[in-house]
Amino acid sequence: MVRKLPRAALLAAIAALPFTSITAAATPQQGSGVAWDIVEGLTTEIGPRIAGSEAEARARAWADAKLKVLGFSNVKIEPFKANVWQRGPEHAKLTAPYQQPLAITALGFSVPTPADGLKADMVYFPTLAALEAAPQGSLKGKVAFVDHAMRRAQDGSGYGPYGNVRRKGPSIAAQKGAAGIVIRSAGTDSHRNPHTGATAWAEGVTPIPAGAVSNPDADLIARIAERGKPMQIDMTLMGKPNPGAPSGNVVAELPGRDPSLPIVLVACHLDSWDLGTGAIDDASGCAIVTAAALAAQKDGKTLRTIRVLWSGNEEMGMNGQGGGTHYAEMHGDEPHAVAMESDFGADNVWQVKNNFAPTNKALADKINAALWPMGIVPHPGETEGGADVGAIIAKQKLAVVDLGQDGMHYFDLHHTPDDTLDKVDPATLQQNVDAWTAVLKVIANEPGEIAEGVGG
Amino acid sequence: MVRKLPRAALLAAIAALPFTSITAAATPQQGSGVAWDIVEGLTTEIGPRIAGSEAEARARAWADAKLKVLGFSNVKIEPFKANVWQRGPEHAKLTAPYQQPLAITALGFSVPTPADGLKADMVYFPTLAALEAAPQGSLKGKVAFVDHAMRRAQDGSGYGPYGNVRRKGPSIAAQKGAAGIVIRSAGTDSHRNPHTGATAWAEGVTPIPAGAVSNPDADLIARIAERGKPMQIDMTLMGKPNPGAPSGNVVAELPGRDPSLPIVLVACHLDSWDLGTGAIDDASGCAIVTAAALAAQKDGKTLRTIRVLWSGNEEMGMNGQGGGTHYAEMHGDEPHAVAMESDFGADNVWQVKNNFAPTNKALADKINAALWPMGIVPHPGETEGGADVGAIIAKQKLAVVDLGQDGMHYFDLHHTPDDTLDKVDPATLQQNVDAWTAVLKVIANEPGEIAEGVGG
Repeated sequence: MVRKLPRAALLAAIAALPFTSITAAATPQQGSGVAWDIVEGLTTEIGPRIAGSEAEARARAWADAKLKVLGFSNVKIEPFKANVWQRGPEHAKLTAPYQQPLAITALGFSVPTPADGLKADMVYFPTLAALEAAPQGSLKGKVAFVDHAMRRAQDGSGYGPYGNVRRKGPSIAAQKGAAGIVIRSAGTDSHRNPHTGATAWAEGVTPIPAGAVSNPDADLIARIAERGKPMQIDMTLMGKPNPGAPSGNVVAELPGRDPSLPIVLVACHLDSWDLGTGAIDDASGCAIVTAAALAAQKDGKTLRTIRVLWSGNEEMGMNGQGGGTHYAEMHGDEPHAVAMESDFGADNVWQVKNNFAPTNKALADKINAALWPMGIVPHPGETEGGADVGAIIAKQKLAVVDLGQDGMHYFDLHHTPDDTLDKVDPATLQQNVDAWTAVLKVIANEPGEIAEGVGG
Repeated sequence: MVRKLPRAALLAAIAALPFTSITAAATPQQGSGVAWDIVEGLTTEIGPRIAGSEAEARARAWADAKLKVLGFSNVKIEPFKANVWQRGPEHAKLTAPYQQPLAITALGFSVPTPADGLKADMVYFPTLAALEAAPQGSLKGKVAFVDHAMRRAQDGSGYGPYGNVRRKGPSIAAQKGAAGIVIRSAGTDSHRNPHTGATAWAEGVTPIPAGAVSNPDADLIARIAERGKPMQIDMTLMGKPNPGAPSGNVVAELPGRDPSLPIVLVACHLDSWDLGTGAIDDASGCAIVTAAALAAQKDGKTLRTIRVLWSGNEEMGMNGQGGGTHYAEMHGDEPHAVAMESDFGADNVWQVKNNFAPTNKALADKINAALWPMGIVPHPGETEGGADVGAIIAKQKLAVVDLGQDGMHYFDLHHTPDDTLDKVDPATLQQNVDAWTAVLKVIANEPGEIAEGVGG
């Protein structure tokens, strides 16, 4: 449905916002260097920043200082606690029929193996469906290996189905009585860098140790399985749950000319997986939304306030304890006009989607027209929003604009040690900033109501 | 000089060769599948096979069985002992000015750090020349970091100068009093897989712990060095020398029609570094020379015997204890006509070089003509032979033909965990086999003397 908020309610909500004081020397920095500066700084001076860690806390302090230096107002760290997970020592090898070390990493929310290793027969399943079809109890005491074949897709659409091997595979294996599970990484590269990521234990399942091997290792296991010889694995994955750990969001604003209007929220996430330095996931997202917010005000304040959210604990927030959820709890009563997120790397924006109400067709046309010269085309598909804005979108039934990035190479790097600064091309990073700036200039200067309508 | 061996001496030497019996069911397998079968089998069923290890011994047994099945005669394992090195646990992190884990690996012949880590200030040197210019004693108690910038080259020519950072850098740092050294990997990729490889301690130098970080980690260190803040490292590299370890060569023959003629030797190495599975370094070399030897006899025996050498301990044989040296000791009195080696991956052959005497111009023309339809061009540069044939070439002043492979991507993978089967393209592997077959058909059917002449 299309949602309307009475203007008076908005004013009251705005007045209640928890403002902090603006730093004295706050002159907005603008131009092409801001985005690169953020990605370079965060990866160099902080590096890996898994949720709940001291590194994530250092990242919040870094973000707080950086946003102030960049000229943002109302910069605030909003702490929360979350049940997350922390990595431990991890290694594995095949012990039969051939001795082969495996490049392995634990999945988030795996439970530890015995410290001297889980030694077990390993059973090969070509697909998640094959694992699901295994008879109950048939995996007792064994390790399940689940293969599959993630393929590249420009819109990243493979991550849903292939990612399910990681999200659901461990629960299914546990339900069948398996002692552990190893999956082929949900990734499209051919390097010995396994892809981590959180699994989601189904209700009532007793968690088991769960890991992912790199694609070349999975290829090896598949070749051995083809030979029909029984396989044995010896794996040590000491990662374990880290309950009630400190995390937090960082929020900041560029005030608009009319504080009575619902704000524009642009989001990214500050935490990263621990294997890489979180360059494309998601320092680049924070860089893009932040640089674009500044650039949108280059020629003067926008009509509406633009708020940036650098979310904590996105990566392990699927249990409802992520920064996006906390943001909606903290700010769910404040009027928002639109929410947008950047969390899909730093490759070129190539398409745009929105969920606007029919009454906002003119606004949609204006956004599309602004992007057209950049070769960015409108796409009729559903908007996704993303984990950091999902809760506030759901709570307020918000309008969304999705700027779709080229995902052909995203899953080469996603959640691996290879997520490092050298993978970010300054030119494509800036193309993102330019696209976001074009959209924010339209949206944050729109005086009329901006309403969600696809669901209405 | 051009060397002539009296025919009688050759016959006597041939008669003295240590023949083993030919297996009963020995029917040569030929065709496009042989080379792939060898690379696939060795990487799948053996995997990493560092010199001196049980895995290298398993690889010798595998090679012995495979060469017999393929129909080779006189298949023999020729064991020797060598002073090699074995890896231990290894990890490192920067502790100042920022906490950053580093993707590190020890260099071959490194000595161990304390088990709880070497904690030291780290000093940045942009080049090997800068390290050389450091004042004596200035590095006392410190770890030297040596950066550089290896670039791609089709003929692999960067490996000489850039490889010297690995070969010579540790000795230079030790001479300056350093407690340890870390180098940027001698590699051209951008993955978090450091490149190992042996260092060569200079006479009189007391070895120090020596490691290499991946290119993205070296980029990080360079960015931190630019900030001018003191760096500290905490590194644990437990690899240590492994003296008097068992290694060995595997030799096998396809007898020619005229056993009185000097043989054609084609070589590769069976050992690999331990981080990957030795697919391009050098299972593919063994696959190429072996498949080509078989293919050259497809239409009937060649005039000359073709001998294949799958050498042991190539990777750590720079101390004169490699398989090539052992081969020359064992077979230095047997007459050889030509020696050729394949040890530069599995990408396309694009050029050919020889060191023939002017008297063999017609033979050279014939080889070049055979390769011309494949787009392989003659190159006037010096032949290199390679580590596995270098000793016998030097001892007998042998004629050499070098089939130069495209090395643009070789140093992306060289000595890393990423040296796995998926990096070998069956089509380019077969192009190598075809090029080698064309050369062997000419050379192994040449009735006249084949003489080295460039040095004469």
